[in-house]
Amino acid sequence: MQQYKAVCLDLDGTVYKGAKVIPEALHFIEKLQQDGIEPYFVTNNSSMTAEQFTQKLSAMGIATHPNQIMTSSLASAKYCKEHYDGATVMMIGEVGLKAALQAEGIIITESNPDVVIVGIDHDISYEKLTQASLAIQSGAHFIATNKDKALPTERGLVPGNGSFVKLLETATGVEALEVGKPASHMLHFIQQKGYRKEEMIMIGDNYDTDIQAGIRFGIDTIHVGGGVTSVEDVLKKMQQPTYMYKTLLDWHK
Amino acid sequence: MQQYKAVCLDLDGTVYKGAKVIPEALHFIEKLQQDGIEPYFVTNNSSMTAEQFTQKLSAMGIATHPNQIMTSSLASAKYCKEHYDGATVMMIGEVGLKAALQAEGIIITESNPDVVIVGIDHDISYEKLTQASLAIQSGAHFIATNKDKALPTERGLVPGNGSFVKLLETATGVEALEVGKPASHMLHFIQQKGYRKEEMIMIGDNYDTDIQAGIRFGIDTIHVGGGVTSVEDVLKKMQQPTYMYKTLLDWHK
Repeated sequence: MQQYKAVCLDLDGTVYKGAKVIPEALHFIEKLQQDGIEPYFVTNNSSMTAEQFTQKLSAMGIATHPNQIMTSSLASAKYCKEHYDGATVMMIGEVGLKAALQAEGIIITESNPDVVIVGIDHDISYEKLTQASLAIQSGAHFIATNKDKALPTERGLVPGNGSFVKLLETATGVEALEVGKPASHMLHFIQQKGYRKEEMIMIGDNYDTDIQAGIRFGIDTIHVGGGVTSVEDVLKKMQQPTYMYKTLLDWHK
Repeated sequence: MQQYKAVCLDLDGTVYKGAKVIPEALHFIEKLQQDGIEPYFVTNNSSMTAEQFTQKLSAMGIATHPNQIMTSSLASAKYCKEHYDGATVMMIGEVGLKAALQAEGIIITESNPDVVIVGIDHDISYEKLTQASLAIQSGAHFIATNKDKALPTERGLVPGNGSFVKLLETATGVEALEVGKPASHMLHFIQQKGYRKEEMIMIGDNYDTDIQAGIRFGIDTIHVGGGVTSVEDVLKKMQQPTYMYKTLLDWHK
């Protein structure tokens, strides 16, 4: 596996489950770092900043740096900068999205935006949804950090950002551009740091997001068991991942 | 038109537009009342009570009685009583839905409901949507007062209840039962007051809701111009309304 310089790991279900680290992932990351490879962490979670993710990982015993974190919020801000330089943005979202936009120097506005970006917002309101809906109907570009329909929590599956995006798509008749996995924008922005596609690999437990993002981007992929998509279900898919691991310990076998 | 004893009128777009009465509708209703016919008012609007609608109509010069008002909230409560007698209900909605449930003696709960009913709620929150989502996934029946995607306001089209229902359908994978137009439940509950279908007629400006509700219920319909669906668009439909009026003055011609 020596050809891989950019090892891209999904977080929830691959590195940890909720607040609990997956021991095999912890071990894998340590060995990788001993080999001189700093992995990238690639998550659809739009609510937290890169710094907050490094703190969360640090508390689990994983030492990393904010530069190694790629969230759907960071990628949405970078996408906005890349495609609509100078545009003003109306955002629905939390600190992760706000910090990402500010880091790119993007002006956040509450009226007449050029772009509307929608990430998960636990403080959502009818007024926020109305303002976004009116802006989109007035022609603002409509970007979704991700379209995850539901999120696993201790309480069960709760509404994900994709459900709120669907609300706005239904109200406006406009389809949002999806930045997070299964789209490949996050991998694109990691590649921009200076990799060839042959040097990149995407690792995750969720076939429909993680593996699909890797396949769409045209890089190698590893499906790791024990998470969202079972091995049996992966085997039924038309496009197979490059490798299938029971756990991440298989990498160093 | 003497055979019609239950004249069912849509409200927004047919009797008034926002806060302004449509003069021809006002005149039509007065003439109807002089002929001894008290019209029914049939609206997907779930937010207001029957009493509030009579006050709104009274302020426009239309004298009526709460018994003549059929809202999607009233019909949702009646549907619940008819199909799930004794069931507890978790509601998302406003005073119109709450009063309707209370009038049917239905117990409103915030945990482990048998039924979840979703109407428009301008005080919507992530927590309310989460609770509804978890209850639906736990097997509660899922009822939508209506599935109107967007609502016309002075600000433009704002998210309607159908967009919030779509959010919950997306998050849960469960499809909601639709009570409001184009479903015919409201007409069913008007018929229960003691009419034969030949005695009923549904009048409205919106083909896809008003006219469809009448067609589905199997009663005569009148499409009236000047509202949501243009005459040209109605003429393209497979199923035509029984009559097409330019304004409601055509009734007495």
